[in-house]
Amino acid sequence: MIPDNHPRYRSLVARERIADAVRSGIVVVEGASAHGRGEAFDYLLCEKTSESALLAEKTAAAYLMAADRAIISVNGNTAALAADEIRELAEASGAAVEVNLFHRTDERMAAITAHLKAAGVTVLEGTPERLLPLSHDRALCLRDGIGTADVVLVPLEDGDRCEALVAMGKTVITIDLNPLSRTAQTATVTIVDELTRALPNITRACRDMTPETGNQLVAAHDNTALLRAALRQIQETLADALD
Amino acid sequence: MIPDNHPRYRSLVARERIADAVRSGIVVVEGASAHGRGEAFDYLLCEKTSESALLAEKTAAAYLMAADRAIISVNGNTAALAADEIRELAEASGAAVEVNLFHRTDERMAAITAHLKAAGVTVLEGTPERLLPLSHDRALCLRDGIGTADVVLVPLEDGDRCEALVAMGKTVITIDLNPLSRTAQTATVTIVDELTRALPNITRACRDMTPETGNQLVAAHDNTALLRAALRQIQETLADALD
Repeated sequence: MIPDNHPRYRSLVARERIADAVRSGIVVVEGASAHGRGEAFDYLLCEKTSESALLAEKTAAAYLMAADRAIISVNGNTAALAADEIRELAEASGAAVEVNLFHRTDERMAAITAHLKAAGVTVLEGTPERLLPLSHDRALCLRDGIGTADVVLVPLEDGDRCEALVAMGKTVITIDLNPLSRTAQTATVTIVDELTRALPNITRACRDMTPETGNQLVAAHDNTALLRAALRQIQETLADALD
Repeated sequence: MIPDNHPRYRSLVARERIADAVRSGIVVVEGASAHGRGEAFDYLLCEKTSESALLAEKTAAAYLMAADRAIISVNGNTAALAADEIRELAEASGAAVEVNLFHRTDERMAAITAHLKAAGVTVLEGTPERLLPLSHDRALCLRDGIGTADVVLVPLEDGDRCEALVAMGKTVITIDLNPLSRTAQTATVTIVDELTRALPNITRACRDMTPETGNQLVAAHDNTALLRAALRQIQETLADALD
């Protein structure tokens, strides 16, 4: 048990959740090490949502609310850490939820779908088709989901898949704690923030969004500026440590 | 299979080794996420041994060679990533090797000992005693090993245990990619470098060490300066990305 007054309580709870999810088969071992990479960057961001991250979250909400067909693509880590937050965002934004795994097996697809449904998430189901320009099972998605979506939120996504979605002309929103990652650099909107802090912020912004604010946020969006602000945030942490 | 001309080949091989070691029971899931945290910092250090890290490695060699009784404390991640490198360092330095686990079970102790022996490492064995000022099994070590050692190399160590060893008056050398971690901040000598780059550098320095050079390195040692140099290295990576 982690004492709830521990200064890094949320981070340690998330770490434990990922470890439990590996043991229950929802997360692969590679997902645990990916989580660790994110933790390190979050540590350098002082485990707080920065002003620029909050702007990215509001911008993401604007794109989701203006979409013809928005999809939230959920992988094992996202399901393990944030099933409730995904349900609330889907409700607030009207986006559909599709399970999409890098390490795809029928067993994991079923386990993650069941885990999301138990949290009250409505999950798209159907026969996957090879619609993404990628090799092997990484090409698979649902025609009525990612296949025909104009806006896709893919938290914690692999670089190749993020690039493939962008190449298909989709608006890609990602949540990635490493501002230098290929995913962060490639997405349309990069939210450099921790998943369980980011999702409720996007949900809140969806609820408050007016078409006018949404248009302004989309018109003013500059992803390079958001990424640079995140890098400067990490620089500040290091500068403080050197003081 | 990872192509061996991949720019991040070594990092990806290490990641795969850790995942395999989780599946074989040598590494716990928590070890995989700890590895991920290290990977993120190594990425920010451009996956290279810096000048200050090399100085730390030479200083570590000086302490090991001057020790009355030096011990290399090996955990699951270290065994999985660097059994051969541990054997070579033990041979070059004359240090003994003790298995010491944060998540300690008889099964893991046996699996890691067998894995090290298969790589030709001579492993200290005996009845562990509660010699460290820590609760539970974390207090356990061997009297003829860590218990009576004056110099202990503990790669990838937990902060509490590093502090406990320092409080017992031992010279503690650690290898830790996060210069801000409690372990890094507490150790006598902190090597901010990746394990499989660091260990061969220490081994080489042990082979080349003269008592005179050793005395000079120990006299000039300034761990705060080494930590600050590592932080500045990460700052440079970020500054380059912002250019």
